[in-house]
Amino acid sequence: MARISESTVGRLSHYYRVLEEVQTEGRRMISSHRLAEREGVTPAQVRKDLSYFGSFGRRGLGYNVAGLLREIRTILGLEQRWRVALVGAGNIGSALLAYRGFGGHGFDIVAVFDRDPGAVGREIGGQVVRDISALAEAAAREGFDMGVIATPAPMAQQVADALVAAGVRGILNFAPRKLQVPDHVALRNVDLTMEFESLSFALAQAKSSRRRA
Amino acid sequence: MARISESTVGRLSHYYRVLEEVQTEGRRMISSHRLAEREGVTPAQVRKDLSYFGSFGRRGLGYNVAGLLREIRTILGLEQRWRVALVGAGNIGSALLAYRGFGGHGFDIVAVFDRDPGAVGREIGGQVVRDISALAEAAAREGFDMGVIATPAPMAQQVADALVAAGVRGILNFAPRKLQVPDHVALRNVDLTMEFESLSFALAQAKSSRRRA
Repeated sequence: MARISESTVGRLSHYYRVLEEVQTEGRRMISSHRLAEREGVTPAQVRKDLSYFGSFGRRGLGYNVAGLLREIRTILGLEQRWRVALVGAGNIGSALLAYRGFGGHGFDIVAVFDRDPGAVGREIGGQVVRDISALAEAAAREGFDMGVIATPAPMAQQVADALVAAGVRGILNFAPRKLQVPDHVALRNVDLTMEFESLSFALAQAKSSRRRA
Repeated sequence: MARISESTVGRLSHYYRVLEEVQTEGRRMISSHRLAEREGVTPAQVRKDLSYFGSFGRRGLGYNVAGLLREIRTILGLEQRWRVALVGAGNIGSALLAYRGFGGHGFDIVAVFDRDPGAVGREIGGQVVRDISALAEAAAREGFDMGVIATPAPMAQQVADALVAAGVRGILNFAPRKLQVPDHVALRNVDLTMEFESLSFALAQAKSSRRRA
Protein backbone atom coordinates (compact mmCIF):
# COMPACT_ATOMS: atom_id res chain seq x y z
CA MET A 1 0.00 0.00 0.00
CA ALA A 2 1.28 3.48 -0.85
CA ARG A 3 2.29 5.74 2.03
CA ILE A 4 -0.77 7.71 3.14
CA SER A 5 -0.34 11.36 4.04
CA GLU A 6 -1.66 12.89 7.24
CA SER A 7 -4.18 14.98 5.33
CA THR A 8 -5.51 11.86 3.58
CA VAL A 9 -5.94 10.20 6.98
CA GLY A 10 -7.83 13.29 8.13
CA ARG A 11 -10.17 13.10 5.14
CA LEU A 12 -10.73 9.37 5.72
CA SER A 13 -11.83 10.22 9.27
CA HIS A 14 -14.27 12.72 7.80
CA TYR A 15 -15.61 10.31 5.17
CA TYR A 16 -16.06 7.80 7.97
CA ARG A 17 -18.31 10.23 9.88
CA VAL A 18 -20.37 11.01 6.78
CA LEU A 19 -20.76 7.30 6.02
CA GLU A 20 -21.90 6.61 9.58
CA GLU A 21 -24.55 9.31 9.22
CA VAL A 22 -25.64 8.08 5.81
CA GLN A 23 -25.93 4.53 7.15
CA THR A 24 -28.11 5.78 10.01
CA GLU A 25 -30.35 7.35 7.38
CA GLY A 26 -30.76 3.87 5.86
CA ARG A 27 -28.89 4.49 2.60
CA ARG A 28 -26.93 1.61 1.04
CA MET A 29 -24.94 3.47 -1.62
CA ILE A 30 -23.24 6.87 -1.80
CA SER A 31 -21.72 8.68 -4.77
CA SER A 32 -18.30 10.33 -4.72
CA HIS A 33 -20.20 13.55 -5.50
CA ARG A 34 -22.30 13.24 -2.37
CA LEU A 35 -19.27 12.39 -0.20
CA ALA A 36 -17.37 15.32 -1.72
CA GLU A 37 -20.23 17.76 -1.24
CA ARG A 38 -20.52 16.90 2.46
CA GLU A 39 -16.80 17.37 2.96
CA GLY A 40 -16.13 20.40 0.82
CA VAL A 41 -13.64 18.61 -1.46
CA THR A 42 -13.86 17.63 -5.13
CA PRO A 43 -15.32 14.27 -6.23
CA ALA A 44 -11.94 13.59 -7.90
CA GLN A 45 -10.24 14.00 -4.51
CA VAL A 46 -12.67 11.53 -2.92
CA ARG A 47 -12.03 8.96 -5.66
CA LYS A 48 -8.27 9.46 -5.34
CA ASP A 49 -8.37 9.07 -1.54
CA LEU A 50 -10.45 5.91 -1.75
CA SER A 51 -8.42 4.44 -4.60
CA TYR A 52 -5.49 3.96 -2.19
CA PHE A 53 -7.38 1.05 -0.74
CA GLY A 54 -8.40 -0.71 -3.92
CA SER A 55 -11.58 -0.26 -5.87
CA PHE A 56 -14.76 -0.08 -3.85
CA GLY A 57 -16.75 2.13 -6.18
CA ARG A 58 -18.86 1.06 -9.15
CA ARG A 59 -19.27 3.56 -11.93
CA GLY A 60 -22.77 5.01 -11.90
CA LEU A 61 -23.70 3.22 -8.67
CA GLY A 62 -21.28 4.82 -6.25
CA TYR A 63 -19.81 3.25 -3.16
CA ASN A 64 -21.35 0.60 -0.95
CA VAL A 65 -21.74 2.36 2.41
CA ALA A 66 -21.30 -0.68 4.66
CA GLY A 67 -18.31 -1.95 2.66
CA LEU A 68 -16.60 1.41 2.68
CA LEU A 69 -17.22 1.84 6.43
CA ARG A 70 -15.64 -1.58 7.04
CA GLU A 71 -12.59 -0.77 4.92
CA ILE A 72 -11.99 2.66 6.47
CA ARG A 73 -12.51 1.17 9.94
CA THR A 74 -9.72 -1.32 9.26
CA ILE A 75 -7.42 1.28 7.72
CA LEU A 76 -7.88 3.67 10.66
CA GLY A 77 -7.43 0.86 13.17
CA LEU A 78 -10.95 1.31 14.54
CA GLU A 79 -12.00 -2.34 14.47
CA GLN A 80 -10.09 -2.83 17.70
CA ARG A 81 -10.12 -1.08 21.07
CA TRP A 82 -7.16 1.02 22.18
CA ARG A 83 -6.10 1.35 25.79
CA VAL A 84 -5.30 4.96 26.62
CA ALA A 85 -3.41 6.26 29.68
CA LEU A 86 -4.10 9.88 30.59
CA VAL A 87 -1.45 11.88 32.44
CA GLY A 88 -2.70 15.07 34.07
CA ALA A 89 -5.96 15.24 36.01
CA GLY A 90 -6.37 19.01 35.85
CA ASN A 91 -8.89 20.98 33.80
CA ILE A 92 -8.12 19.50 30.40
CA GLY A 93 -7.71 15.97 31.74
CA SER A 94 -11.01 16.19 33.62
CA ALA A 95 -12.72 17.60 30.54
CA LEU A 96 -11.41 14.71 28.43
CA LEU A 97 -12.69 12.22 31.00
CA ALA A 98 -16.06 14.00 31.04
CA TYR A 99 -16.29 13.78 27.26
CA ARG A 100 -17.67 10.35 26.49
CA GLY A 101 -17.28 10.48 22.72
CA PHE A 102 -13.96 8.66 22.48
CA GLY A 103 -15.25 5.33 23.82
CA GLY A 104 -17.69 5.09 20.95
CA HIS A 105 -14.75 5.17 18.55
CA GLY A 106 -12.66 2.53 20.30
CA PHE A 107 -10.55 4.72 22.59
CA ASP A 108 -10.83 3.76 26.26
CA ILE A 109 -9.14 5.90 28.88
CA VAL A 110 -8.22 3.07 31.24
CA ALA A 111 -5.81 4.85 33.60
CA VAL A 112 -5.23 8.37 34.93
CA PHE A 113 -2.01 9.63 36.49
CA ASP A 114 -0.97 12.89 38.13
CA ARG A 115 1.93 14.00 40.25
CA ASP A 116 -0.06 16.32 42.52
CA PRO A 117 -0.66 14.60 45.88
CA GLY A 118 -3.94 16.54 46.06
CA ALA A 119 -5.18 14.87 42.87
CA VAL A 120 -3.87 11.34 43.52
CA GLY A 121 -6.55 9.07 44.99
CA ARG A 122 -9.46 11.21 43.77
CA GLU A 123 -12.01 9.63 41.46
CA ILE A 124 -12.64 11.42 38.16
CA GLY A 125 -14.88 10.08 35.44
CA GLY A 126 -14.89 6.62 37.02
CA GLN A 127 -11.08 6.47 37.29
CA VAL A 128 -9.05 6.75 40.48
CA VAL A 129 -6.10 9.06 39.84
CA ARG A 130 -2.79 7.29 40.49
CA ASP A 131 0.62 8.71 41.25
CA ILE A 132 2.72 9.28 38.13
CA SER A 133 5.50 7.22 39.72
CA ALA A 134 3.24 4.17 39.28
CA LEU A 135 3.11 4.58 35.48
CA ALA A 136 5.88 2.14 34.50
CA GLU A 137 4.61 -0.65 36.69
CA ALA A 138 0.99 -0.10 35.65
CA ALA A 139 1.99 -0.13 31.97
CA ALA A 140 3.87 -3.41 32.41
CA ARG A 141 0.88 -5.00 34.14
CA GLU A 142 -2.03 -3.43 32.22
CA GLY A 143 -0.57 -2.44 28.85
CA PHE A 144 -1.27 0.99 27.34
CA ASP A 145 -1.39 1.57 23.59
CA MET A 146 -1.55 5.36 23.72
CA GLY A 147 -0.89 8.17 26.14
CA VAL A 148 -2.59 11.52 26.51
CA ILE A 149 -0.55 14.36 27.99
CA ALA A 150 -2.67 16.98 29.76
CA THR A 151 -0.04 18.41 32.10
CA PRO A 152 1.42 21.91 32.33
CA ALA A 153 3.99 22.59 29.59
CA PRO A 154 7.13 22.35 31.74
CA MET A 155 6.34 18.71 32.68
CA ALA A 156 5.27 17.56 29.22
CA GLN A 157 8.59 16.28 27.82
CA GLN A 158 9.35 14.33 30.98
CA VAL A 159 5.89 12.73 30.82
CA ALA A 160 6.37 11.95 27.13
CA ASP A 161 9.66 10.21 27.95
CA ALA A 162 7.94 8.20 30.70
CA LEU A 163 5.11 7.20 28.34
CA VAL A 164 7.58 6.14 25.64
CA ALA A 165 9.55 4.13 28.21
CA ALA A 166 6.24 2.59 29.29
CA GLY A 167 5.77 1.32 25.74
CA VAL A 168 3.00 3.49 24.29
CA ARG A 169 3.14 3.85 20.52
CA GLY A 170 1.03 6.97 20.18
CA ILE A 171 0.80 10.21 22.14
CA LEU A 172 -1.86 12.91 22.01
CA ASN A 173 -0.36 16.04 23.53
CA PHE A 174 -2.52 18.85 24.92
CA ALA A 175 0.37 20.64 26.63
CA PRO A 176 1.51 23.75 24.76
CA ARG A 177 5.02 22.45 24.12
CA LYS A 178 6.74 20.79 21.16
CA LEU A 179 7.78 17.30 22.21
CA GLN A 180 10.55 14.99 21.06
CA VAL A 181 9.60 11.33 20.66
CA PRO A 182 11.31 8.45 18.85
CA ASP A 183 10.27 7.70 15.26
CA HIS A 184 8.27 4.62 16.19
CA VAL A 185 5.93 6.71 18.37
CA ALA A 186 3.17 8.68 16.65
CA LEU A 187 2.60 12.15 18.07
CA ARG A 188 -0.33 14.55 17.62
CA ASN A 189 -0.62 17.96 19.23
CA VAL A 190 -3.83 19.75 20.20
CA ASP A 191 -3.77 23.23 21.66
CA LEU A 192 -7.26 24.60 22.15
CA THR A 193 -6.09 27.98 23.40
CA MET A 194 -4.01 28.26 20.22
CA GLU A 195 -7.11 27.65 18.13
CA PHE A 196 -8.86 30.50 19.94
CA GLU A 197 -5.77 32.68 19.49
CA SER A 198 -5.78 32.02 15.78
CA LEU A 199 -9.36 33.38 15.73
CA SER A 200 -8.55 36.40 17.84
CA PHE A 201 -5.59 37.08 15.54
CA ALA A 202 -7.96 37.14 12.55
CA LEU A 203 -10.43 39.38 14.39
CA ALA A 204 -7.71 41.77 15.59
CA GLN A 205 -6.29 42.01 12.06
CA ALA A 206 -9.72 42.73 10.59
CA LYS A 207 -10.26 45.41 13.21
CA SER A 208 -6.93 47.13 12.53
CA SER A 209 -7.57 47.02 8.75
CA ARG A 210 -10.90 48.73 9.31
CA ARG A 211 -9.17 51.32 11.48
CA ARG A 212 -6.61 51.97 8.72
CA ALA A 213 -9.28 52.12 5.99
CA MET B 1 2.36 44.54 7.62
CA ALA B 2 2.90 41.48 5.40
CA ARG B 3 0.21 38.81 5.35
CA ILE B 4 0.94 36.33 8.12
CA SER B 5 0.39 32.64 7.43
CA GLU B 6 -1.61 30.36 9.71
CA SER B 7 1.52 28.42 10.64
CA THR B 8 3.28 31.65 11.64
CA VAL B 9 0.32 32.54 13.86
CA GLY B 10 0.59 29.08 15.42
CA ARG B 11 4.27 29.58 16.17
CA LEU B 12 3.58 33.04 17.65
CA SER B 13 1.12 31.39 20.04
CA HIS B 14 3.85 28.95 21.00
CA TYR B 15 6.47 31.66 21.49
CA TYR B 16 3.95 33.49 23.63
CA ARG B 17 3.65 30.49 25.96
CA VAL B 18 7.42 30.12 26.22
CA LEU B 19 7.82 33.82 26.95
CA GLU B 20 5.17 33.65 29.69
CA GLU B 21 7.06 30.77 31.29
CA VAL B 22 10.40 32.52 30.97
CA GLN B 23 8.95 35.68 32.51
CA THR B 24 7.63 33.63 35.45
CA GLU B 25 11.18 32.35 35.93
CA GLY B 26 12.27 35.99 36.28
CA ARG B 27 14.32 36.27 33.08
CA ARG B 28 14.41 39.59 31.25
CA MET B 29 16.01 38.56 27.94
CA ILE B 30 15.77 35.48 25.72
CA SER B 31 17.87 34.48 22.71
CA SER B 32 16.40 33.26 19.43
CA HIS B 33 18.35 30.05 20.11
CA ARG B 34 16.57 29.48 23.39
CA LEU B 35 13.14 30.25 21.87
CA ALA B 36 13.92 27.93 18.97
CA GLU B 37 15.13 25.13 21.19
CA ARG B 38 11.96 25.22 23.27
CA GLU B 39 9.79 25.09 20.17
CA GLY B 40 11.73 22.65 18.03
CA VAL B 41 12.32 25.13 15.19
CA THR B 42 15.52 26.77 13.93
CA PRO B 43 16.78 30.09 15.37
CA ALA B 44 16.56 31.47 11.82
CA GLN B 45 12.84 30.62 11.76
CA VAL B 46 12.32 32.42 15.08
CA ARG B 47 14.10 35.53 13.80
CA LYS B 48 12.11 35.43 10.56
CA ASP B 49 8.79 35.06 12.41
CA LEU B 50 9.57 37.93 14.76
CA SER B 51 10.91 40.16 11.99
CA TYR B 52 7.36 40.49 10.60
CA PHE B 53 6.63 42.82 13.46
CA GLY B 54 9.66 45.04 13.30
CA SER B 55 12.93 44.58 15.10
CA PHE B 56 12.69 43.68 18.78
CA GLY B 57 15.94 41.74 19.02
CA ARG B 58 19.39 43.09 19.73
CA ARG B 59 22.32 41.14 18.36
CA GLY B 60 24.13 39.35 21.14
CA LEU B 61 21.54 40.33 23.73
CA GLY B 62 18.47 38.59 22.38
CA TYR B 63 14.89 39.69 22.83
CA ASN B 64 13.38 41.63 25.67
CA VAL B 65 10.85 39.24 27.18
CA ALA B 66 8.31 41.81 28.39
CA GLY B 67 8.49 43.78 25.13
CA LEU B 68 8.06 40.70 22.98
CA LEU B 69 5.14 39.49 25.12
CA ARG B 70 3.46 42.86 24.69
CA GLU B 71 3.95 42.85 20.91
CA ILE B 72 2.73 39.28 20.41
CA ARG B 73 -0.24 39.98 22.71
CA THR B 74 -1.25 42.86 20.44
CA ILE B 75 -0.69 40.90 17.24
CA LEU B 76 -2.73 37.94 18.48
CA GLY B 77 -5.48 40.23 19.76
CA LEU B 78 -4.96 39.11 23.36
CA GLU B 79 -4.84 42.54 24.97
CA GLN B 80 -8.62 42.60 24.85
CA ARG B 81 -11.34 40.23 26.02
CA TRP B 82 -13.45 38.33 23.51
CA ARG B 83 -17.07 37.40 24.14
CA VAL B 84 -17.72 33.82 23.10
CA ALA B 85 -21.11 32.18 22.57
CA LEU B 86 -21.15 28.39 22.86
CA VAL B 87 -23.78 26.40 20.97
CA GLY B 88 -24.25 22.82 22.15
CA ALA B 89 -24.36 21.91 25.83
CA GLY B 90 -23.56 18.21 25.35
CA ASN B 91 -20.36 16.39 26.25
CA ILE B 92 -17.93 18.61 24.34
CA GLY B 93 -19.71 21.83 25.30
CA SER B 94 -19.75 20.85 28.98
CA ALA B 95 -16.09 19.87 28.80
CA LEU B 96 -15.24 23.28 27.31
CA LEU B 97 -17.17 25.02 30.07
CA ALA B 98 -15.40 22.88 32.68
CA TYR B 99 -12.02 23.82 31.22
CA ARG B 100 -11.08 27.14 32.77
CA GLY B 101 -7.96 27.78 30.72
CA PHE B 102 -9.55 30.02 28.08
CA GLY B 103 -10.51 32.81 30.46
CA GLY B 104 -6.86 33.33 31.35
CA HIS B 105 -6.17 34.10 27.70
CA GLY B 106 -9.00 36.57 27.18
CA PHE B 107 -11.74 34.24 25.92
CA ASP B 108 -14.92 34.41 28.01
CA ILE B 109 -17.75 32.00 27.28
CA VAL B 110 -20.59 34.39 28.10
CA ALA B 111 -23.58 32.51 26.69
CA VAL B 112 -24.58 28.88 26.08
CA PHE B 113 -27.32 27.72 23.72
CA ASP B 114 -28.85 24.35 22.91
CA ARG B 115 -31.96 23.19 21.10
CA ASP B 116 -32.70 20.24 23.39
CA PRO B 117 -35.55 21.18 25.77
CA GLY B 118 -33.90 18.86 28.32
CA ALA B 119 -30.75 20.98 28.29
CA VAL B 120 -32.36 24.43 28.15
CA GLY B 121 -32.62 26.03 31.59
CA ARG B 122 -29.94 23.84 33.14
CA GLU B 123 -26.90 25.53 34.65
CA ILE B 124 -23.51 24.37 33.38
CA GLY B 125 -20.23 25.95 34.38
CA GLY B 126 -22.01 28.98 35.78
CA GLN B 127 -24.08 29.53 32.62
CA VAL B 128 -27.79 28.88 32.23
CA VAL B 129 -28.38 27.12 28.91
CA ARG B 130 -30.72 29.11 26.66
CA ASP B 131 -32.84 27.99 23.74
CA ILE B 132 -31.05 28.29 20.40
CA SER B 133 -34.00 30.32 19.09
CA ALA B 134 -32.91 33.12 21.48
CA LEU B 135 -29.48 33.46 19.80
CA ALA B 136 -30.23 36.35 17.43
CA GLU B 137 -31.88 38.48 20.09
CA ALA B 138 -29.19 37.72 22.66
CA ALA B 139 -26.47 38.60 20.14
CA ALA B 140 -28.12 41.92 19.36
CA ARG B 141 -28.38 42.76 23.06
CA GLU B 142 -25.15 41.29 24.43
CA GLY B 143 -22.78 41.15 21.45
CA PHE B 144 -20.74 38.04 20.71
CA ASP B 145 -17.34 38.19 19.02
CA MET B 146 -16.91 34.47 18.45
CA GLY B 147 -19.00 31.34 18.40
CA VAL B 148 -18.12 27.80 19.37
CA ILE B 149 -20.04 24.98 17.70
CA ALA B 150 -20.26 21.84 19.81
CA THR B 151 -23.37 20.29 18.29
CA PRO B 152 -23.85 17.01 16.41
CA ALA B 153 -22.59 17.20 12.81
CA PRO B 154 -26.00 17.38 11.07
CA MET B 155 -26.85 20.63 12.91
CA ALA B 156 -23.49 22.31 12.53
CA GLN B 157 -24.00 24.23 9.26
CA GLN B 158 -27.35 25.60 10.41
CA VAL B 159 -25.76 26.76 13.66
CA ALA B 160 -22.85 28.33 11.75
CA ASP B 161 -25.35 30.24 9.59
CA ALA B 162 -27.16 31.45 12.72
CA LEU B 163 -23.89 32.56 14.34
CA VAL B 164 -22.84 34.42 11.18
CA ALA B 165 -26.26 36.10 11.02
CA ALA B 166 -25.81 37.01 14.70
CA GLY B 167 -22.64 38.89 13.77
CA VAL B 168 -19.81 36.71 15.12
CA ARG B 169 -16.54 37.15 13.25
CA GLY B 170 -14.87 33.91 14.30
CA ILE B 171 -16.08 30.34 14.74
CA LEU B 172 -14.38 27.43 16.45
CA ASN B 173 -16.05 24.26 15.20
CA PHE B 174 -15.90 20.99 17.15
CA ALA B 175 -18.54 19.25 15.03
CA PRO B 176 -17.06 16.74 12.58
CA ARG B 177 -18.30 18.54 9.48
CA LYS B 178 -16.76 20.95 7.00
CA LEU B 179 -18.58 24.27 7.25
CA GLN B 180 -19.18 27.07 4.78
CA VAL B 181 -18.82 30.59 6.16
CA PRO B 182 -18.39 33.97 4.44
CA ASP B 183 -14.85 35.28 3.90
CA HIS B 184 -15.09 37.85 6.67
CA VAL B 185 -15.64 35.13 9.27
CA ALA B 186 -12.60 33.21 10.52
CA LEU B 187 -13.14 29.47 10.96
CA ARG B 188 -11.08 26.88 12.82
CA ASN B 189 -11.94 23.21 13.13
CA VAL B 190 -11.04 20.90 16.00
CA ASP B 191 -11.93 17.23 15.91
CA LEU B 192 -10.53 15.39 18.91
CA THR B 193 -11.76 12.00 17.77
CA MET B 194 -9.96 12.58 14.48
CA GLU B 195 -6.73 13.23 16.38
CA PHE B 196 -7.14 9.90 18.14
CA GLU B 197 -7.94 8.23 14.81
CA SER B 198 -4.78 9.60 13.30
CA LEU B 199 -2.88 7.87 16.12
CA SER B 200 -4.75 4.60 15.75
CA PHE B 201 -4.07 4.74 12.01
CA ALA B 202 -0.34 5.00 12.72
CA LEU B 203 -0.49 2.16 15.24
CA ALA B 204 -2.55 -0.07 12.95
CA GLN B 205 -0.13 0.57 10.06
CA ALA B 206 2.87 -0.27 12.24
CA LYS B 207 1.16 -3.47 13.34
CA SER B 208 0.38 -4.58 9.79
CA SER B 209 3.96 -3.82 8.66
CA ARG B 210 5.26 -6.02 11.46
CA ARG B 211 2.85 -8.73 10.40
CA ARG B 212 4.13 -8.51 6.81
CA ALA B 213 7.80 -8.49 7.88
